[in-house]
Amino acid sequence: MKLNLNPYKGMRDFYPEDQQIFNYIFNNLKEVVELFGYKQYNAPIIESEELYLSKSSKEIIDHQTYSFIDRGNRKVVIRPEMTPSVARMVAAKRKSLNYPLRWYSLPNLLRYERPQNSRFREHWQLNIDFFGEESVLAEIELIKLVGYIFNKFKASTSDYTIRINSRKLIEFILNDLNISKDNYFEIFRIIDKKDKIDLDTFREELKQFIDSPDKINTLNNFLSIKDINKIPDQFKNNDSYKKLTQILSSLKLTNLVLDTSIIRGFDYYTDIVFEVSDNDPSNNRSIMGGGRYDHLIEQLGEDPLAIVGFGLGDSSFYNFLKSHNLLPKLTNHQTVGVLLIDDLYDQATLIFDKLRDNDINTVVNFSNNKLGQKIKWALKESLRYVLVVGESELESNQITFKDLLSSTQEKLTIDEIIAIINK
Amino acid sequence: MKLNLNPYKGMRDFYPEDQQIFNYIFNNLKEVVELFGYKQYNAPIIESEELYLSKSSKEIIDHQTYSFIDRGNRKVVIRPEMTPSVARMVAAKRKSLNYPLRWYSLPNLLRYERPQNSRFREHWQLNIDFFGEESVLAEIELIKLVGYIFNKFKASTSDYTIRINSRKLIEFILNDLNISKDNYFEIFRIIDKKDKIDLDTFREELKQFIDSPDKINTLNNFLSIKDINKIPDQFKNNDSYKKLTQILSSLKLTNLVLDTSIIRGFDYYTDIVFEVSDNDPSNNRSIMGGGRYDHLIEQLGEDPLAIVGFGLGDSSFYNFLKSHNLLPKLTNHQTVGVLLIDDLYDQATLIFDKLRDNDINTVVNFSNNKLGQKIKWALKESLRYVLVVGESELESNQITFKDLLSSTQEKLTIDEIIAIINK
Repeated sequence: MKLNLNPYKGMRDFYPEDQQIFNYIFNNLKEVVELFGYKQYNAPIIESEELYLSKSSKEIIDHQTYSFIDRGNRKVVIRPEMTPSVARMVAAKRKSLNYPLRWYSLPNLLRYERPQNSRFREHWQLNIDFFGEESVLAEIELIKLVGYIFNKFKASTSDYTIRINSRKLIEFILNDLNISKDNYFEIFRIIDKKDKIDLDTFREELKQFIDSPDKINTLNNFLSIKDINKIPDQFKNNDSYKKLTQILSSLKLTNLVLDTSIIRGFDYYTDIVFEVSDNDPSNNRSIMGGGRYDHLIEQLGEDPLAIVGFGLGDSSFYNFLKSHNLLPKLTNHQTVGVLLIDDLYDQATLIFDKLRDNDINTVVNFSNNKLGQKIKWALKESLRYVLVVGESELESNQITFKDLLSSTQEKLTIDEIIAIINK
Repeated sequence: MKLNLNPYKGMRDFYPEDQQIFNYIFNNLKEVVELFGYKQYNAPIIESEELYLSKSSKEIIDHQTYSFIDRGNRKVVIRPEMTPSVARMVAAKRKSLNYPLRWYSLPNLLRYERPQNSRFREHWQLNIDFFGEESVLAEIELIKLVGYIFNKFKASTSDYTIRINSRKLIEFILNDLNISKDNYFEIFRIIDKKDKIDLDTFREELKQFIDSPDKINTLNNFLSIKDINKIPDQFKNNDSYKKLTQILSSLKLTNLVLDTSIIRGFDYYTDIVFEVSDNDPSNNRSIMGGGRYDHLIEQLGEDPLAIVGFGLGDSSFYNFLKSHNLLPKLTNHQTVGVLLIDDLYDQATLIFDKLRDNDINTVVNFSNNKLGQKIKWALKESLRYVLVVGESELESNQITFKDLLSSTQEKLTIDEIIAIINK
């Protein structure tokens, strides 16, 4: 029987050319977050199920996790997101950690969802969290950092939009409309999918939790505000309104806007939330999103702790870079090829040892293919420089040095070659 | 109810100080394998169960995997090792890949085993594979690379031993003793655990597959040979004997030895196998191991392909570095702290923007703690340089610049400070 050689449904193989792009993206993300002093951490890929029961989005836990019973009869979940894990880690050392803390991670996360349109069942995320800062300066720093991320990849501010909102403003209006607090989470979930459903369905779903069409109208009108100056006066003494105003005025970014319909999918957000979207309409998923969640450590039984964080998924960010032509053409020019003509590995060792001892990445082709085939191999590998080494080269210490980019070659000593490569 | 805040049994949380060591180790490993021209790839963490059924060690599949049925009714396994996945990826593109191929990965792998003595249920591995080279030069390159890895971490050759053997030599002697081929895998498994059980148990277990005590003696005597010159003459025309001789004479490493009892735990090895052990007896697990497995691609239904590979696990390598005092003292000196005295984030932005625009990692403490507490925070963070910024500093453009290492401070302009940091 022949085995199916495809990867598991909805997940991806990363061949070296895919991984090279992946590394380009994540190495740059790491550089930006470390520029802001964030430190990397990690947690196990498996967590006990109870960690998720009250803190995440209900839909994810009920339908979208990889959950199973382990051989020790424990109910476990492969992490669908990183926030519960990092909250557990911080809660475990709540008293001894050095606040403010800035932490990041690059986990693989699993969700059992219908594979479609670059939503994958395994994806990687840049996850950053800022612990122990109650003021809105934490949100301001995170949004500033978002701008640095896009700059790092040479995106322009016209390529993307950062939308901010506050869940507390929505709670304020729901309270005004006399809606029971018990229904807030359900209403948030409906608002969160607003742009994926039509208006009638939206109103219909809200009817379960809001008892009059007028109230639904009032809420719906509020959710269409995209300008801080259009927020009704009754909100202007509200702390979250002031925070939103401060974020906008402190950062002064042309592509940072208020969007009262932004709510984010996780139940744990408490106040400011934000989301970044691609201005290219063909890429309609959010690129990253986050917000403040100040109750999570408390819910784990420890003293309360202010937290602001966000996550950026690999595939929607990749799509963003692709749609704006921001992916570099990656080569393999930093690696030098040594092609051995004869069966003289031992004698030629001093050549490739010397290259490596000079920190030059060196790949040796000692297969018994003919030289012509070895050169084809080097071209297909996108190598730029190759050394051809045979018996006469070793005797004379004059090595054939080819530049495959310019299709030129000359005979040089190994020291001359190293000097050229290092230039 | 208070939640258990420990990580899932047998797995590890990596707090930033742990992750920093982890990154130090894996960044250095990456540099070494890239120095040899290996390219990174990755595969999904989940594979279908059938991929493992015939190719791995039986014990691992029966008792040590995390296996479950997914929501789509598929029998799946969280990868316990990387070899089946990479073989699947290469088999899927068997005809179009550019041989010889050198690939590596840094996967997290899961095994359900009894947590003990730094064996963890989730661990990370450097996995490297060399595809498409039938000659023993592939083994020679890999063992050479092993030496470079230890050099990179400043280990000396007296700290560790590389042991090589060939499964084909053991097969040769089993064949000589008229043992049925059907029993080879079972006998290999017993040999693999030889140094964990006493001699009586070893002989007892072999009795199931080898019918006479004399034959067991012959095998056992062979398995104690540690010197290539002591291999009986009858083996000297054997190809694998010649390969072992060539490896030893080509590499000429003082710590590379023959050990006829090395067999490795996976069924797929076909010939040369090797293992690296710590010369410190307190760390008795092998640090890395690998070998040749030339039938795997064939077993997946594609044309045969020669493969040599090895794996190095994070925890036994960490233990090696620790036992030989090779772990560096890691600081956070590459990050500069900016401590704001007053509530003047917006006004001070130009300071930390300028530092970051000069590629200096900059962490800003804008909490409302007192300056003394902020300095304690900076010390606890292991920062070296901090800038203290208050209203008067901003007005005069003379910033208090502290070196916490030398406990000195002076007033300088931001440009002077950048010049000092960049030195």
